[in-house]
Amino acid sequence: MHFALFFQIFNFIGIFVFAVSGAMRGVRNGLDLFGILVLAVVTAVSGGILRDLLIGAIPPQSIQDWHGIALALVAGVLVFFFHRVFERLQYPVLLFDAAGLGLFAVTGTQKALDYGLAPEMAVILGVISGIGGGMVRDVLSAQVPVVLRGEIYASAALLGAVLLLGGDWLHLPSWLSLLFGASCTFLLRSLAIYRHWTLPRPR
Amino acid sequence: MHFALFFQIFNFIGIFVFAVSGAMRGVRNGLDLFGILVLAVVTAVSGGILRDLLIGAIPPQSIQDWHGIALALVAGVLVFFFHRVFERLQYPVLLFDAAGLGLFAVTGTQKALDYGLAPEMAVILGVISGIGGGMVRDVLSAQVPVVLRGEIYASAALLGAVLLLGGDWLHLPSWLSLLFGASCTFLLRSLAIYRHWTLPRPR
Amino acid sequence: MHFALFFQIFNFIGIFVFAVSGAMRGVRNGLDLFGILVLAVVTAVSGGILRDLLIGAIPPQSIQDWHGIALALVAGVLVFFFHRVFERLQYPVLLFDAAGLGLFAVTGTQKALDYGLAPEMAVILGVISGIGGGMVRDVLSAQVPVVLRGEIYASAALLGAVLLLGGDWLHLPSWLSLLFGASCTFLLRSLAIYRHWTLPRPR
Repeated sequence: MHFALFFQIFNFIGIFVFAVSGAMRGVRNGLDLFGILVLAVVTAVSGGILRDLLIGAIPPQSIQDWHGIALALVAGVLVFFFHRVFERLQYPVLLFDAAGLGLFAVTGTQKALDYGLAPEMAVILGVISGIGGGMVRDVLSAQVPVVLRGEIYASAALLGAVLLLGGDWLHLPSWLSLLFGASCTFLLRSLAIYRHWTLPRPR
Repeated sequence: MHFALFFQIFNFIGIFVFAVSGAMRGVRNGLDLFGILVLAVVTAVSGGILRDLLIGAIPPQSIQDWHGIALALVAGVLVFFFHRVFERLQYPVLLFDAAGLGLFAVTGTQKALDYGLAPEMAVILGVISGIGGGMVRDVLSAQVPVVLRGEIYASAALLGAVLLLGGDWLHLPSWLSLLFGASCTFLLRSLAIYRHWTLPRPR
Repeated sequence: MHFALFFQIFNFIGIFVFAVSGAMRGVRNGLDLFGILVLAVVTAVSGGILRDLLIGAIPPQSIQDWHGIALALVAGVLVFFFHRVFERLQYPVLLFDAAGLGLFAVTGTQKALDYGLAPEMAVILGVISGIGGGMVRDVLSAQVPVVLRGEIYASAALLGAVLLLGGDWLHLPSWLSLLFGASCTFLLRSLAIYRHWTLPRPR
């Protein structure tokens, strides 16, 4: 499969699921239609915009073409009308956030590599891309960001980013590395949510 | 009238009114002189800086020359000494914010068009420029951002940005499009404040 | 002493002390290891990244090479294991923050001058670099930013930035200006913390 296309698909799925997580938070907080749409878009594109600003891909992809923002708006409208479907999931905001975390961690790492960053910095960029959207969503809705709440979160993004890098070193097909890295982040994060796994705290 | 000059005037008025709204928030929260000045400057320049970073106008205008920041400081000092005058208005923070919203929505859209962005993205950039300053002000003063509070806000900015675009298509003089778009945003937003207009919420 | 090296050393000490202040905040808020590391890194590099984005030094220094982030991670791990040592200080978060404030105020001003900004804007950039890290730390941990809490803070950063500029005008050796400016900011800010100095408030 053509790599650029695969990357794009992953990026769009990431935007969609982050938008759902932002819109669901808006529904929970009793926002109106436009507030929900704003939170959906901001959650969906902040991680990618931050990534692009930091690696020097300016204007950022979400600003250069309209597809990402349009997709986030569609997700927001869907949630507005069908939020009860999403609410059947136990933790809808966090679960969609976990999917976005995985997808953006691997696409962020890959894009940073494509822009010539060293591997160790590409991994950091992947983590930033993954955690950025949820961070902005939580700060805007006046909650302590999920990344600081003490379940495995940034560490799950790190796992996906490192696995993508490993796949690169082993010359695996890019789509396989992207898929594998994103899935492992999603699985680890989901397990942390449902089993309440945590990392050690200072004594 | 020369267009660049008109654009500049609009930009400066936008900076001034946002600075007043930030400084009034500082007075309300009991900040000292410097805290008020910081909140005035940050509210006034954040939207424009965000706009410039996103369209690739780097360094941003407010960083390249000192006029914007100086103007915001003057507004902050005025509020510090004469805040009782401003307090006679019923919602001073929100009303000055509404004026800034309209001015930045149209100048943001125009500048994005000038930098070659597609019309639909220029509109998005206008909305971002408009809502950016108030968002940062509210996050810094630990309030839920006005854009999420469920009165017509981002939608008012969208109206102004779309009207500017329409004026462009009709080949109206730029100053007329800017003025008309900004006024409509301001009027719609002010009506929403005083009449408590809202958009629909999810059931 | 070679100037670039001296600048780098100051930058790294600034990163380290801001990382300690972020990590101590994480310990106070009961975060786990990864949350503490994230808060350490974000506090340490946000001011410098913001500075670099604004002056057009893209990708920012902390993204181009790994030393800054690695240093922040080391500081975070040290705090995780030895936070009781740091807690013997009366206000550890604020004290390390004061050191970072001074160091980043002068290095930010100097870097902005090197990138060709006018002196008055370089001073503003210095203040932004100094207050950026603490602002992000406080917003993420859901506190009112220290810069708005009404003790001498941004004004202390301003003092250091202006002194650096004064040193430049007097053709003092750069290392001396950096050292003198940073020390004065640190002293003024520390005195404000321990003696509860404040600036005037509106009547």
